[in-house]
Amino acid sequence: MSASSHPLDVATQLEPQGEGRYRGHTSPQYANMVGPFGGVIAATLLNAALGHPDRLGEPIAFTVNYAGPIADGEFDLLAQPARTNRSTQHWQVELRQNEQVAATATGVFAARRETWSSVEARFPEVPPAATLPRYPNVGRAQWTRCYDMRFVHGEMQFSAPAQPQQDSASTLWIRDEPPRPLDFVSLLAISDAFFPRIFVRRPLWTPIGTVSFTTYFHADATTLDAAGDAAVLGIARAHQFRNGYFDQSAEVWSATGALLATSHQIVYYKE
Amino acid sequence: MSASSHPLDVATQLEPQGEGRYRGHTSPQYANMVGPFGGVIAATLLNAALGHPDRLGEPIAFTVNYAGPIADGEFDLLAQPARTNRSTQHWQVELRQNEQVAATATGVFAARRETWSSVEARFPEVPPAATLPRYPNVGRAQWTRCYDMRFVHGEMQFSAPAQPQQDSASTLWIRDEPPRPLDFVSLLAISDAFFPRIFVRRPLWTPIGTVSFTTYFHADATTLDAAGDAAVLGIARAHQFRNGYFDQSAEVWSATGALLATSHQIVYYKE
Repeated sequence: MSASSHPLDVATQLEPQGEGRYRGHTSPQYANMVGPFGGVIAATLLNAALGHPDRLGEPIAFTVNYAGPIADGEFDLLAQPARTNRSTQHWQVELRQNEQVAATATGVFAARRETWSSVEARFPEVPPAATLPRYPNVGRAQWTRCYDMRFVHGEMQFSAPAQPQQDSASTLWIRDEPPRPLDFVSLLAISDAFFPRIFVRRPLWTPIGTVSFTTYFHADATTLDAAGDAAVLGIARAHQFRNGYFDQSAEVWSATGALLATSHQIVYYKE
Repeated sequence: MSASSHPLDVATQLEPQGEGRYRGHTSPQYANMVGPFGGVIAATLLNAALGHPDRLGEPIAFTVNYAGPIADGEFDLLAQPARTNRSTQHWQVELRQNEQVAATATGVFAARRETWSSVEARFPEVPPAATLPRYPNVGRAQWTRCYDMRFVHGEMQFSAPAQPQQDSASTLWIRDEPPRPLDFVSLLAISDAFFPRIFVRRPLWTPIGTVSFTTYFHADATTLDAAGDAAVLGIARAHQFRNGYFDQSAEVWSATGALLATSHQIVYYKE
């Protein structure tokens, strides 16, 4: 959908096939330990709705369910409005590979109007991104090279003398690497770019995988434009790890203190 | 799916039509100001997957998008597994009325195994439900009669001398009225039974409507059984109200301190 050669635009690029059908592909730059980074898959599903000729307004809510493994290579998307109202539109998007559903998504888009507004969450006191060291990329998770992450606290620590932590909360500055102006596509990917809470809490490797991921967009395109390509502040925590599934709730703030998105997910872990 | 005559079971009852199709109906006892209480619609959509002969495991995540108004009367559901894996299953459910999609849902079900577990959220210090007064039901919102709510703080206050509040956070004990043993269906409805945050924050009436609602189930059926028909503790807050949409994040705890569900939604408001 974009002529940009930024790796995120290349990774989320779609070839329209008509009637809401698109051909997409995984991107080696956003490879994860196994399969692609889920945040870029979500961004690609969103991109299908964003680029659809019938699209109304801007995204308010987007939910992706990761239904099965996605192999390196091409995949097919089908994006359809389930219902269009005067100022809102409901979307269903499906990702298929080898005739099997590998992900489903639903989204709500809306034309916003100016109203009474108020933010109740608080932007924390944190040192500026430039004063913090860049987190090194993570071994086989190629996608981590596509982000500049600077942790205020709550890094993943796999190397000795790593200790189990009291909690799994993290606060970090994050931006696309190379820098790229923020938009809905990159914000959605960033809202899934928090390391799995279980790896922040416990320095033990176990297979994990997000099963359901929802982002609420609190910002419109104008607010995202104003954020430019500066780092955004991410805050993530878990409520509970229990019998194979843990949750994560996150906030994404602009550097100037606008709450851009809140995001939630539930993640499988093996042990 | 239940032979119970509890109003919630009557309201969420479905008549199987074969191949994942069901006939459902709104219930006067769960009427809202306009149309039905969304929590019971969500519970009915979940019930379609729960009662499907191909269902595997128990719900982990359930997302409902409210796409359009639902009129009093009958509606049609279609519940289909999008993909079934060894221990997880992904669902799509659609509610139609008069040939139009009025709600869509996606769900993840799973067979859980025992693993390392840990709760990071904290059960707050609150007085027992029995020591608090029951909140009176809300005028035209008939569904509020179907819950016994006892507020620790953060009630809706529409009558003088109501004042704008500092924030929209609420903590309350809540149970079905009449009492009913907790299960996934009633827990999902309860997780949408928090009054709209904007009415807690501002004592002004404005049209509102949830557009997208997600609940993560942290408890299995055994844990829900153990909660019985006692009141559960609900905690809800908003991160932001902005240009027509606000979010809500909630926790639902058993009286004995088990975190049963976390739940998130984004809600339209007119002004």
